[in-house]
Amino acid sequence: MAVGTETNLAELYSEVRNFYGRHMQLLDAGDPEGWANTFTEDGSFAPPSLPEPVRGRENLIAGLRKSAADLAENGEVHRHCMLMTTVTPRGDGTIVATSYTQIISTARGGEPRLHLMCVCRDILVREDGELKVRERVVTRDDRP
Amino acid sequence: MAVGTETNLAELYSEVRNFYGRHMQLLDAGDPEGWANTFTEDGSFAPPSLPEPVRGRENLIAGLRKSAADLAENGEVHRHCMLMTTVTPRGDGTIVATSYTQIISTARGGEPRLHLMCVCRDILVREDGELKVRERVVTRDDRP
Amino acid sequence: MAVGTETNLAELYSEVRNFYGRHMQLLDAGDPEGWANTFTEDGSFAPPSLPEPVRGRENLIAGLRKSAADLAENGEVHRHCMLMTTVTPRGDGTIVATSYTQIISTARGGEPRLHLMCVCRDILVREDGELKVRERVVTRDDRP
Repeated sequence: MAVGTETNLAELYSEVRNFYGRHMQLLDAGDPEGWANTFTEDGSFAPPSLPEPVRGRENLIAGLRKSAADLAENGEVHRHCMLMTTVTPRGDGTIVATSYTQIISTARGGEPRLHLMCVCRDILVREDGELKVRERVVTRDDRP
Repeated sequence: MAVGTETNLAELYSEVRNFYGRHMQLLDAGDPEGWANTFTEDGSFAPPSLPEPVRGRENLIAGLRKSAADLAENGEVHRHCMLMTTVTPRGDGTIVATSYTQIISTARGGEPRLHLMCVCRDILVREDGELKVRERVVTRDDRP
Repeated sequence: MAVGTETNLAELYSEVRNFYGRHMQLLDAGDPEGWANTFTEDGSFAPPSLPEPVRGRENLIAGLRKSAADLAENGEVHRHCMLMTTVTPRGDGTIVATSYTQIISTARGGEPRLHLMCVCRDILVREDGELKVRERVVTRDDRP
């Protein structure tokens, strides 16, 4: 049982931040299955560059497979840096987490570049004790 | 009551980081009243660009109202990213928190840009259970 | 004693992040002895720019003394920003911590610049209750 409200927040905050670390390290390493497993089976991801959200693990896997192949072909590495996270647990057991997100792009032999500045709004849920992304909406600062 | 020293640090560290997330999301969204409420009534903020600190919520509100209007007019978004925070509770109940702070600026349709690299030194206090900034001093790396 | 697994992670995660804050603030302030003390006596640091790891506090001190003098001569400030940390405690009491690391460089009177994008893989240990870096391996995104 929880010791108190603050302990809860500390546990949850650290867990979310550790989860995001793993989640983005899987994305940036180009591990489609590992990354898709950090979403719920029907998880959705609305990136700003697509007209419709990507829904479900199969589509998430296909999407990352393609973008990882494109990056590899260009000799580029992306790093997704989620920053300034706020975590708000809701009464229904879901968690709202909002983070600033920098995408850093580095070409082989080149200087790293701040490619995009985004805001990432997640609804996280717990499945078998583990956090998963159920819904993600990302907006870009250059397209307000 | 606290379970032990380490539990205290974990609780405090997470609380400070979650507070900073909310604090900066309010600032960057241009919410002067919400943002000023994360300072104490007599809170002071010494930005490197002003000769004197801004003191008190009314002046903080006026300052943010102006800078938010300027950004809107220029079609620019700023994101304040506080990083590498150290948190040191002091015997008098106040908390010293030091963070590297990146200010990212993005123009509509433009590339995001690392505008300023700063160090932010805060004295935080607790009022009615909530963290507030009592004193903030910011220095810029380009003006040592 | 620990209250439970999640409490453990929250305590450890916050402690690691607070430690990294102090560790990098010492490095970037050019405090060779203070910084070297955040490594074990025989701690090793494999930066991507050297053919061999730097081993032991004396060599770490000498290395930082030189790089701090170089930066001062150039009128430059570096900030090491460790981001997206994952923390994994191992059965032997050591901790694996992996972080994205931005190095931001700012010249006097100049614009800050994202100098390097790295990944930092640490083995942390606890000595007399305090975290120390026993082994650090850093890779650069521009040299895959």
